[in-house]
Amino acid sequence: MASTLPAAIVFDTFGTVVDWRTSLIDDLSAYGAQRGISADWPALVDAWRAAYRPSMDRVRKGELPWTRLDDLHRGSLDRLVAEHGITGLTEEDLVHINLGWHRLRPWPDSVPGLTRLKARFIIGPLSNGNVSLLTNMAKHSGLPWDMIFGSDLFGHYKPDPETYLGVAKLLDLPPGRVMMAAAHNDDLAAARNCGLMTAFFPRIVEYGPLQNRDYAADGPWDYVVRDIEDLAAQLGA
Amino acid sequence: MASTLPAAIVFDTFGTVVDWRTSLIDDLSAYGAQRGISADWPALVDAWRAAYRPSMDRVRKGELPWTRLDDLHRGSLDRLVAEHGITGLTEEDLVHINLGWHRLRPWPDSVPGLTRLKARFIIGPLSNGNVSLLTNMAKHSGLPWDMIFGSDLFGHYKPDPETYLGVAKLLDLPPGRVMMAAAHNDDLAAARNCGLMTAFFPRIVEYGPLQNRDYAADGPWDYVVRDIEDLAAQLGA
Repeated sequence: MASTLPAAIVFDTFGTVVDWRTSLIDDLSAYGAQRGISADWPALVDAWRAAYRPSMDRVRKGELPWTRLDDLHRGSLDRLVAEHGITGLTEEDLVHINLGWHRLRPWPDSVPGLTRLKARFIIGPLSNGNVSLLTNMAKHSGLPWDMIFGSDLFGHYKPDPETYLGVAKLLDLPPGRVMMAAAHNDDLAAARNCGLMTAFFPRIVEYGPLQNRDYAADGPWDYVVRDIEDLAAQLGA
Repeated sequence: MASTLPAAIVFDTFGTVVDWRTSLIDDLSAYGAQRGISADWPALVDAWRAAYRPSMDRVRKGELPWTRLDDLHRGSLDRLVAEHGITGLTEEDLVHINLGWHRLRPWPDSVPGLTRLKARFIIGPLSNGNVSLLTNMAKHSGLPWDMIFGSDLFGHYKPDPETYLGVAKLLDLPPGRVMMAAAHNDDLAAARNCGLMTAFFPRIVEYGPLQNRDYAADGPWDYVVRDIEDLAAQLGA
């Protein structure tokens, strides 16, 4: 347990603050039914998420120039729609489906916990999503961010250090006064290497039946808590 | 009157949303009294603000590399303290005084008007202030921004087009779906040249007895209103 409090807390978003899998499955299933297009939407969602990290790694390794997550998502979607044999989708449909990432729903503790934390700390997402995605998501779900740290502000994806250190620089804070909160141990390890404080809470159903990691903290994190409301309680907010 | 509504509204901040002159005079006068340091604080504040645009112009013209507004403010403060013969200020005092720009108070209509607008539009400051200044100001005064567009996100000061167009790019909106709101006609002229919508409302006591401009709209702005609450009313928010 750290002896000092942070001035700012930044949150991983996909999985940590919002339930991307259930949200997208519900969103696509309803849209497919409305449009009369049948598909195994859960399988598409799982494959889409599986393409997430490899697509960012192409940017991180320099194989692609800087590309926003919305555009990486669209590239993966186009490929997967073909691979899964889904037919009948128009360009308008594909645009709508791709923006499903802007319409993700928060976990039940997210809005109440963030609202409590906001009264005492600067809060924001530090996400691989772009600013427009994260802004639209916040408006859609009532996430009460003070500032939105999209990856396009830095031209880098996590776990590149430019992201964690970029938050500290923009807030004019030493890295040690910024806390990274995430349900993913690897994100916290990268943040800690940059000198940030860390807080972990599990989201054990994030990947549904495919979950195979991050059931518990596996590093020396400053705070290990139950969820965002518990984080607020532990930090006296 | 424009026929379409914006998706996002960005606000000039110093003078438009917050009353920098009265806030700083009160802040410095109280601090000077507490520290037993006498000075003509109103004169210092007016001289400090007069140094604002010339200091940014040195960056805009390339005479200085990118320098955050906090640091431009500090450079001007150091020079003016000497010129005004103010003695007895420690480094800690100067840091505190310089952060007075983070503690500016909103005009009475700002928070209620922004709160109404936030329910319907994406709102943010588009200010020459840096992100940390604007974030701290929002926390201090309860400004309910969705996203903070500090000049350090763009490495440019208004009226450089990179600022206005940078907002549209980060929000993934055409410039014509973004509205610039300001109490300064020159800011709106630059925004309009970039294709943004525009809204003007006057702040006729911004400069106190030194006010000599911006009593009224002097361009073809999309909306000319009384204040931010009136803007919310005109936009149906």
